[in-house]
Amino acid sequence: MSEIAQIGLKPALERVAAEIDRNFDLLLPVPEDPRARLFHAMRHAAIGGGKRMRPLLVCAACDLFNVDRAAALRVATAIECIHVYSLVHDDLPCMDDDDMRRGRPTVHIQFDEATAVLAGDSLHALAFELLADEATHADPFVRIELVRELARASGPSGMAGGQAMDLAAEHETFDLSTVTRLQQLKTGALIGFCLEAAAIMGHVPAEGRTRLRGYARDIGLAFQIADDLLDVEGDEAAVGKPLHKDEAAGKATFVSLLGVERARQQASMLVDQAIAHLSSFGAEAGLLRAVARYVVERDR
Amino acid sequence: MSEIAQIGLKPALERVAAEIDRNFDLLLPVPEDPRARLFHAMRHAAIGGGKRMRPLLVCAACDLFNVDRAAALRVATAIECIHVYSLVHDDLPCMDDDDMRRGRPTVHIQFDEATAVLAGDSLHALAFELLADEATHADPFVRIELVRELARASGPSGMAGGQAMDLAAEHETFDLSTVTRLQQLKTGALIGFCLEAAAIMGHVPAEGRTRLRGYARDIGLAFQIADDLLDVEGDEAAVGKPLHKDEAAGKATFVSLLGVERARQQASMLVDQAIAHLSSFGAEAGLLRAVARYVVERDR
Repeated sequence: MSEIAQIGLKPALERVAAEIDRNFDLLLPVPEDPRARLFHAMRHAAIGGGKRMRPLLVCAACDLFNVDRAAALRVATAIECIHVYSLVHDDLPCMDDDDMRRGRPTVHIQFDEATAVLAGDSLHALAFELLADEATHADPFVRIELVRELARASGPSGMAGGQAMDLAAEHETFDLSTVTRLQQLKTGALIGFCLEAAAIMGHVPAEGRTRLRGYARDIGLAFQIADDLLDVEGDEAAVGKPLHKDEAAGKATFVSLLGVERARQQASMLVDQAIAHLSSFGAEAGLLRAVARYVVERDR
Repeated sequence: MSEIAQIGLKPALERVAAEIDRNFDLLLPVPEDPRARLFHAMRHAAIGGGKRMRPLLVCAACDLFNVDRAAALRVATAIECIHVYSLVHDDLPCMDDDDMRRGRPTVHIQFDEATAVLAGDSLHALAFELLADEATHADPFVRIELVRELARASGPSGMAGGQAMDLAAEHETFDLSTVTRLQQLKTGALIGFCLEAAAIMGHVPAEGRTRLRGYARDIGLAFQIADDLLDVEGDEAAVGKPLHKDEAAGKATFVSLLGVERARQQASMLVDQAIAHLSSFGAEAGLLRAVARYVVERDR
């Protein structure tokens, strides 16, 4: 059994969080010129916050296939760049209009809206610069496949498309299958890429990829249902941002469509199903199983 | 002499504009789902407008090195994705707050601000998806080099960094060297990538790349000086957007620092210098020479 699978979930999350913070710190030195404010904003958004669940997924899955940890961490940092940029833009007044994120002022509050737009755009570009760099992986075939899949997962047929559906949800009442599709794009596509990236770097054959995709799809949906439950039942201080926003906006969510009890059952069923996708792996997949459980048990 | 070098600048611009429009039309079919509005916004921003100067630069330079035109056009479309996304975000109320662009309502006016943010983000991702696709170029080394260079040219050490300097220019008075650096990042980096992309696809040796870089640097600055002159002296109807904005914002520009006459001389000198960089090329570089002259003679 590999080193990481033996340690528990909490120390694994703490370790990957420290590693991602260190990567961002090295990647974003503040220049002594008028761009300083932009870099400070990027650092404010990227360093020292968040669950780092996506980086942990990348590292835990890479560990299954003996992928070099430094390479896994660089790819994890690229994914976190995309995740963080989407949060910075999502928090803007014209989008979700959130003042707090991860217990701290959002970028447009701490800096200004224009800087928030550019900090998001800059983190977006940085993700692809990171993936394309030969320091990430020696094989250009691997790097270009990572770039293509991340661009798809984050663009209009992935995350950004899901965010556009989310905007439409303010004016239309979506049914369960449309909400499911929305969430599969908005959060599922990037979570799917975390596992796909490990499969690409680990040269995993088709059958293994299908299982990893199934795992990713299930925890992605479970994650979102848990988010919807936290929005209704969570503790604002623990979550670090205002709650009850979906309810106030009249948006259809898993909880509004299923009710609290059935939503909780559905999330729990998805976690079991996700873990079942890992049955061909042994104890070395312990951390991925723990992540699946954490996704619905977390309080933030 | 190749076909494209023989035709004049105007038909070459019209041809490339039609080809870029066609590429965007094929790349952005509107889905029959709640993402339709996002795709309509992307199409509004990307199709049927603009000078298409960057795509022409890519195609004219690729033509020098016998690069397949379809490949050149796909890369040109990717660059135009980045250019267009930057305009969409730049026009937002929190940035330049422009209602008109290319003679039409800007995306946040025609649609809404949130859709404009997402349309920009989506075009940004699409650029990298295009470059990474094997339909663009068979050689993964070429594709990954294109991705890396475009990410650098558009990120915080390129275009986005220049935009951040532009924000700072509202509060600080920049001197000529800082304004030059600002413009080299804000517009120069992406124009530089147009030539660099051709050099990458054409496997051009170091010496040739240095000349192309010199050409790009000079026309990039000349282009910006011409823009500053248009802002002061241009015809709003021809330019298709409100003018005198820099003056109103109290921003230092080439014109405010040099005066109209010296700015015009400087632009003209840069054009001569850009053309001198092409001296080792024969008549086949005629179109690149014509672009250099067009950059300062245009009325929009």
